[in-house]
Amino acid sequence: MGQESRRMQAVQAPVIPVVADLIRRHPGTISLGQGVVSYGPPPEALQEIQRFLAEPENHKYQPVTGLPELVDAFANKLRVENGVSLEGSRFVVTAGGNMAFMNAIMAVADVGDEVILQTPYYFNHEMAVTMAGAHPVLVDTDAQFQLQPDAMAAAITPRTRAVVTISPNNPTGAVYPESALRAVNALCRERGLWHIHDEAYEYFTYTSGHFSPGSIEGAGEHTFSLYSMSKAYGFASWRVGGMVIPERLLTAVRKIQDTILICAPVISQYAAIGALRAGRAWCAERVRELGATRELVLNELQQLRGFCEPPSAEGAFYVHLRLDTPQRPMELVERLVREHGVAVIPGTAFGLEHGCHLRVSYGALRQDVAVAGMGRLVRGLRQIFGVR
Amino acid sequence: MGQESRRMQAVQAPVIPVVADLIRRHPGTISLGQGVVSYGPPPEALQEIQRFLAEPENHKYQPVTGLPELVDAFANKLRVENGVSLEGSRFVVTAGGNMAFMNAIMAVADVGDEVILQTPYYFNHEMAVTMAGAHPVLVDTDAQFQLQPDAMAAAITPRTRAVVTISPNNPTGAVYPESALRAVNALCRERGLWHIHDEAYEYFTYTSGHFSPGSIEGAGEHTFSLYSMSKAYGFASWRVGGMVIPERLLTAVRKIQDTILICAPVISQYAAIGALRAGRAWCAERVRELGATRELVLNELQQLRGFCEPPSAEGAFYVHLRLDTPQRPMELVERLVREHGVAVIPGTAFGLEHGCHLRVSYGALRQDVAVAGMGRLVRGLRQIFGVR
Repeated sequence: MGQESRRMQAVQAPVIPVVADLIRRHPGTISLGQGVVSYGPPPEALQEIQRFLAEPENHKYQPVTGLPELVDAFANKLRVENGVSLEGSRFVVTAGGNMAFMNAIMAVADVGDEVILQTPYYFNHEMAVTMAGAHPVLVDTDAQFQLQPDAMAAAITPRTRAVVTISPNNPTGAVYPESALRAVNALCRERGLWHIHDEAYEYFTYTSGHFSPGSIEGAGEHTFSLYSMSKAYGFASWRVGGMVIPERLLTAVRKIQDTILICAPVISQYAAIGALRAGRAWCAERVRELGATRELVLNELQQLRGFCEPPSAEGAFYVHLRLDTPQRPMELVERLVREHGVAVIPGTAFGLEHGCHLRVSYGALRQDVAVAGMGRLVRGLRQIFGVR
Repeated sequence: MGQESRRMQAVQAPVIPVVADLIRRHPGTISLGQGVVSYGPPPEALQEIQRFLAEPENHKYQPVTGLPELVDAFANKLRVENGVSLEGSRFVVTAGGNMAFMNAIMAVADVGDEVILQTPYYFNHEMAVTMAGAHPVLVDTDAQFQLQPDAMAAAITPRTRAVVTISPNNPTGAVYPESALRAVNALCRERGLWHIHDEAYEYFTYTSGHFSPGSIEGAGEHTFSLYSMSKAYGFASWRVGGMVIPERLLTAVRKIQDTILICAPVISQYAAIGALRAGRAWCAERVRELGATRELVLNELQQLRGFCEPPSAEGAFYVHLRLDTPQRPMELVERLVREHGVAVIPGTAFGLEHGCHLRVSYGALRQDVAVAGMGRLVRGLRQIFGVR
């Protein structure tokens, strides 16, 4: 009997379920693993459920590209907050940020084409490119996990179709300065490439503002801007995100989403309308609390000096540790769960084949639990590294 | 600047939005177009929303393969109603039947592989195969839209990976007899192919029972069985479906769904648990009403004799008309909307390049409106064909 396709054999196994399995086998483990926040959606979101239920037609399929009311609410947010206009562009509601990325890749990359990702990359991005039969081309970020536009330029070949960036970054927490994003967007324009920029963590900045390359004059021609409700609005399980796309790709994106999904879940789209009404002000309070957790996390990490320089991690809710050791990261992750009751994600999941990296997420836990988890992590690493 | 990928240029434009656009421009048109039912979900489904909201963890991501409680409910239904056991197989919850199909294609077909579809095909199946970089190989059904296993066998090449069947069928309403489905399933087993069988319309049979090829002894090894909540439970906009897959493909399907979606919307999965509790008995009442509509529809179609032999259309809520005319079906569709206020779907959307076919859907309307629409269709066609 047949086996799975070679394409799927070539796609890495998602590591989150592997670590989740480890956690299940070690009850009491504090997970600094999955990239979610600890809170649920604003009351305004849940109030919309009644409005959804009041209209029987809402149980039928709705437009592939999203409810017009939600598209309008997003368009307004984009104009006011991001400086992104939809002139020459369109906003498409998706079932989450991952689907927005898959739509983008299918729309622009053919089999055998190349897509430039920055390492460490977000694993589902690499998986989507591979699944689509295209090739991820990996460009390293620098020691502070910042973009290296010259290295990107050097990686471009005649098969390159797109450059992917994420800021604030998953998995590193790095925030790219406006100048770097402008450089990448200009590089793409000059070389006839698409710039696919993921802004899922746009509200999670602690030391700077957020910059959307889609706001650059003329960028709408070649820029995808990807958004998610999952993080800022505590909306992960509802599956609503969206994407700004160049208008001439609308037909392609409609075909893709119609075939994969038909339309994003409509009850969730109603809730999203309510969430956007609560808006950034509602999110900002939660982000402030996360900012305080981040301070505590970064303080705690000072104790790793000597074998791990704590990174600045200005955004999202991730800290990426680069450990000075020949140990394999997955072994380290297993020891940390088994011996110290704390779970993190190995850097291998993010395309880091050399060195020993760990992704620490502090978003999913109440502050006291997150700090307790960091305590375990720091004590565990110090013990494993023989530092007293 | 770049254009859309060649892969997406090769994918047909979905016709449903084109017809929807025609309808919008001609207010008062009765749509016999889209494949949805007129009713919404059972009260048991909506009651589950409170249970979803009562648990804050429900806002976070849940397992890629579905909530265990929903998987169990489906497993029970499959055992009792379909005779499908999950020994050696797994059930995976998806965001609708389309996603189940995309998961299956990605899991088994590589770029350049061939997948056999029956014409007329369901357009999103053809689109999914093309998007995945594989090739749809089209095998005609017979004059009664029934399977032709010999023609299928003749179409198999070394690149063939899977055979797709749908029963009850979209777009023809044909129900395949057990013997034919057994023949296809055996052919696939003998030739080392996957059998991907779509049962989205399983409850919509009016003259016979329903047979699941996944219930054949040993079929679980090479058979995908695809299900949808959208039709029977009036659940289209909630996006919940599912698939029985051979266990050895679980890793591949997890990777695919994690990358495209992460997990099906969790509020919808709760509602689906409630819907399955209402169960087939609740659906059966609505299907009985649709059966009465079907009788009226088939009676009305008798008036087309002479230029259209009414098909038997034993299942789903579709009738596929084969018209004896050199007219192009899209032209006919446009005339029917403009001049007679009734919309149907042209057969070209289903891969029928020769002849003039129309798909008529009678599921989405109250019986009186459906019958009024059929009246317009029959009068319109008789007038266009010059029959008094």
